[in-house]
Amino acid sequence: MDIGFIGLGNMGSAMVANLLKAGHRVRVWNRTAEAARALADKGAVPVDRPHDAFGGDAVLSMLADDRAVRAVLLDGGVLEQAPAGLVHANMATISVALAQELAERHAARGIGYVAAPVFGRPPAAAAAQLNIVTAGAADALARVQPLFDVLGQRTWPVGDDPVRANVVKLSGNFMIAAAIEAMGEATTLAAAYGVEPRDLLEILTNTLFAAPAYKGYGEQIASGRYEPAGFKLALGLKDVRLALEAGEGRSVPLPLGSLLRDGFLDSIAHGDGEKDWAALALVARRRAGQG
Amino acid sequence: MDIGFIGLGNMGSAMVANLLKAGHRVRVWNRTAEAARALADKGAVPVDRPHDAFGGDAVLSMLADDRAVRAVLLDGGVLEQAPAGLVHANMATISVALAQELAERHAARGIGYVAAPVFGRPPAAAAAQLNIVTAGAADALARVQPLFDVLGQRTWPVGDDPVRANVVKLSGNFMIAAAIEAMGEATTLAAAYGVEPRDLLEILTNTLFAAPAYKGYGEQIASGRYEPAGFKLALGLKDVRLALEAGEGRSVPLPLGSLLRDGFLDSIAHGDGEKDWAALALVARRRAGQG
Amino acid sequence: MDIGFIGLGNMGSAMVANLLKAGHRVRVWNRTAEAARALADKGAVPVDRPHDAFGGDAVLSMLADDRAVRAVLLDGGVLEQAPAGLVHANMATISVALAQELAERHAARGIGYVAAPVFGRPPAAAAAQLNIVTAGAADALARVQPLFDVLGQRTWPVGDDPVRANVVKLSGNFMIAAAIEAMGEATTLAAAYGVEPRDLLEILTNTLFAAPAYKGYGEQIASGRYEPAGFKLALGLKDVRLALEAGEGRSVPLPLGSLLRDGFLDSIAHGDGEKDWAALALVARRRAGQG
Amino acid sequence: MDIGFIGLGNMGSAMVANLLKAGHRVRVWNRTAEAARALADKGAVPVDRPHDAFGGDAVLSMLADDRAVRAVLLDGGVLEQAPAGLVHANMATISVALAQELAERHAARGIGYVAAPVFGRPPAAAAAQLNIVTAGAADALARVQPLFDVLGQRTWPVGDDPVRANVVKLSGNFMIAAAIEAMGEATTLAAAYGVEPRDLLEILTNTLFAAPAYKGYGEQIASGRYEPAGFKLALGLKDVRLALEAGEGRSVPLPLGSLLRDGFLDSIAHGDGEKDWAALALVARRRAGQG
Repeated sequence: MDIGFIGLGNMGSAMVANLLKAGHRVRVWNRTAEAARALADKGAVPVDRPHDAFGGDAVLSMLADDRAVRAVLLDGGVLEQAPAGLVHANMATISVALAQELAERHAARGIGYVAAPVFGRPPAAAAAQLNIVTAGAADALARVQPLFDVLGQRTWPVGDDPVRANVVKLSGNFMIAAAIEAMGEATTLAAAYGVEPRDLLEILTNTLFAAPAYKGYGEQIASGRYEPAGFKLALGLKDVRLALEAGEGRSVPLPLGSLLRDGFLDSIAHGDGEKDWAALALVARRRAGQG
Repeated sequence: MDIGFIGLGNMGSAMVANLLKAGHRVRVWNRTAEAARALADKGAVPVDRPHDAFGGDAVLSMLADDRAVRAVLLDGGVLEQAPAGLVHANMATISVALAQELAERHAARGIGYVAAPVFGRPPAAAAAQLNIVTAGAADALARVQPLFDVLGQRTWPVGDDPVRANVVKLSGNFMIAAAIEAMGEATTLAAAYGVEPRDLLEILTNTLFAAPAYKGYGEQIASGRYEPAGFKLALGLKDVRLALEAGEGRSVPLPLGSLLRDGFLDSIAHGDGEKDWAALALVARRRAGQG
Repeated sequence: MDIGFIGLGNMGSAMVANLLKAGHRVRVWNRTAEAARALADKGAVPVDRPHDAFGGDAVLSMLADDRAVRAVLLDGGVLEQAPAGLVHANMATISVALAQELAERHAARGIGYVAAPVFGRPPAAAAAQLNIVTAGAADALARVQPLFDVLGQRTWPVGDDPVRANVVKLSGNFMIAAAIEAMGEATTLAAAYGVEPRDLLEILTNTLFAAPAYKGYGEQIASGRYEPAGFKLALGLKDVRLALEAGEGRSVPLPLGSLLRDGFLDSIAHGDGEKDWAALALVARRRAGQG
Repeated sequence: MDIGFIGLGNMGSAMVANLLKAGHRVRVWNRTAEAARALADKGAVPVDRPHDAFGGDAVLSMLADDRAVRAVLLDGGVLEQAPAGLVHANMATISVALAQELAERHAARGIGYVAAPVFGRPPAAAAAQLNIVTAGAADALARVQPLFDVLGQRTWPVGDDPVRANVVKLSGNFMIAAAIEAMGEATTLAAAYGVEPRDLLEILTNTLFAAPAYKGYGEQIASGRYEPAGFKLALGLKDVRLALEAGEGRSVPLPLGSLLRDGFLDSIAHGDGEKDWAALALVARRRAGQG
């Protein structure tokens, strides 16, 4: 297919590489030009403006956050100049408010819109092992599904309202943060009685909690190594805030989400914002004077 | 081996059956006689008083809670009449305060003491698939290890201080309750945007959270079926309280534990104390007016 | 003095009436014209556009929230057309982010800017009994102080950075909400043991808590009458959110603020958003099954 | 009257002095003899055993906590040897569970029982300015009312079930702790924007929060002086725990109480257990990295 791709961070670059490998023709745009140049060596076609990427059979975007999405896709008039009939799959983790606005703005312009946030970090993106949660009109989804088949191990469709995919993504990240907090408190309690964090987590993450989220973050907590960050704590705060805002939009209290937000702020106040978000576990230790 | 077994609830009865099957001679005692009679058919020897079970090569106990342990083993003078050199493995989920007291009382009488709480419900006990967390002196542990090999899929030793095994058990149950709360809030949030609890949990419990704790409790939350109870919510409150008390004993704040305690109380106030503790998820829905 | 006044809600109208009574000449503007007409009978001069009010010796504004302030004062270009040397006292409860932006935008235009949020409801405004918290440059403050002397029982200056006055106002409202929550939980606990909310609060609000915030909201809780609203619960949520956002801007966790936010959302989910914010106390009762 | 008084700490000693001054004959007992000797100089009659104080027209007790009450009044058989018809007014802050047990034990022995916890610290006790909350049978109350008139500025009767008075006391202390937390968070937020704690609290405690609880603890927070302790933080934790236990006994969740408990544990983990409980405010600062 002839596609555009906007946003070439660690995730986006790995995804474009896989799309090229699968034989797709990919025009790429990024705010800074370096990432595009690196992909040109693999066959991508760098373009100067997001408008130039926003055409062809479909366009995928993987921008950092609400601000970037708004700046690149809404404020610059990209949608207004896009060819009718195009399908855009937005794979970024964004707020439900922006997701709703995007869905309406695309519909008004006759552009197909699919929300397709992913679970998986850059190594999973490189290995084409992402889990992709999708929502949007059936025909728009059908158009981009072959691309998702290239990028992920599985696609999880959740209906035709794009915002649903975003709320699933936020719910998942909320649950990861909750798991980190739970491990942080449990290891702090156990340590107070002489049980090493590693010993506690070895038992639990090989039995009841034998799942990727617990094994991966558990290893960081057991070793106390939170750098380099796989996912920065400051971004974890952002995603939990987005979950809380989504809750507020429908009058859904999330007290565990509030607790996580307070913990992330405590982390940032203590200089841990650039560490991996598993460093949230340090807050529990600090509260107990173990820090 | 010639052993005693005290406490024949659903868990204890299943464990005794396995011990008998493995060829051990088992004297059994229970507060009410029925359970002992049922096991007599399988070869167990019912005895009239806990004192009579508290002898031989080793004795295992699986009593309901602190109150039962105190009533049966401490208040009645069982320890005082036990033969020196006996090893007692206490497999109940009890407070760290009582665990500490039991360790001291046994030591004072020259009786080996092992704490050996388990992860697993009655079906896992029947299938000899328990995970057994153990702590105690090496020689005492060695004595009862052959029995644990019969009862569980794996033994997880955590050192010589018995209280450590109890704190691991409490930490694990705390983490299960935290997972339930996280799923309760996440499904409530998602439902407010049209995503069915089942759809959200299918994605998450097959990817990041593909672990027994999430799959099992997630299924209950997805189906909304909390009866019959595998583990009663009122007992979940008890275990979280024990974790909080353990924390208080070492000045370890557990704000997530506090949130869980408040949630369980809310559940009980709304008549859900006899349901499975996964019914904690209903609190999140009620807060959002979805109840 | 020759002044303008923008925003004629219950608070603003009462304040303008006092300024007129004190002999000031007041041009008034409101989004809807009715309120202005009513004040015209008392000597105010209604004007058609906010620009027309934004001149003379000084201008006071009392708009509803960030959105209104932004719409009326920033988006419409009012500042750009204002005479240099004018002093503007913004008496609304707004976010610290907007407070900061306003301070910068006024400075860039050479307009004096004073933040002057108030404690007190419409009856206090009518009785000229407001407590006015002020911050801004000394000369700007000096200009509008005579007006504050008319409007309030006392002015509380907190320095030259306008945002300080706003953060004091948000802190105060946060503390009121905290007092409501504390009374809500305490009365629910006491009621569970047969002590009527009124009996508990009579003791406490006449001894340790003999303060206006406790007496006023305590009376509502004791009587269970939350309508008509003196201050709507939905606005209480807004102000607590502003406090939390202010905290987030400086990495200050406010767990009590989070608890209040969750409680207000619970209230709104149960249809209490238009009641007085003292109705937050109903959440505590509902949690305990007393609702 | 001919009365006994048990428990001669700072509170009890000051109260006995007032009773003596008013002309009553007072037999006094304390666990350690020194305090009794000091009061002997003022006319009190020290006795060797609590049994000896537990007679006459009435006996008042002011013991430290549940443990002391249980040890002195229940375990030693004092009730069993008391003359039928005696009235005992228990002025200590105790759990509702013990309050209930005491009521039953007294009733079984035909001894009148009044719960009469107080609000006020030692200086208030010395000045006979206590606020005394009372509950019990009318005739028993009538017997000891003249003594309360000597000791306090006012008596607040709350019914005939003694436990009610205790729950009022626990509710009051819970509300004080909540006020400290609210001030701790508010001053931390304000300080992050350049407003000194003293400046914020001066405004609020002279307006909306012009009440003894806020003024007294606010002064400690403003000055940062938490020693010597008027009421030790470790005792504050105990009282909040008693409130939480009272809540648990009736399935009443108290999330603000939970937050306070976690905060007190954090304080103790950081070495502040012996400081005044207003030092809870330091936790909010520590969370924000201001500590």
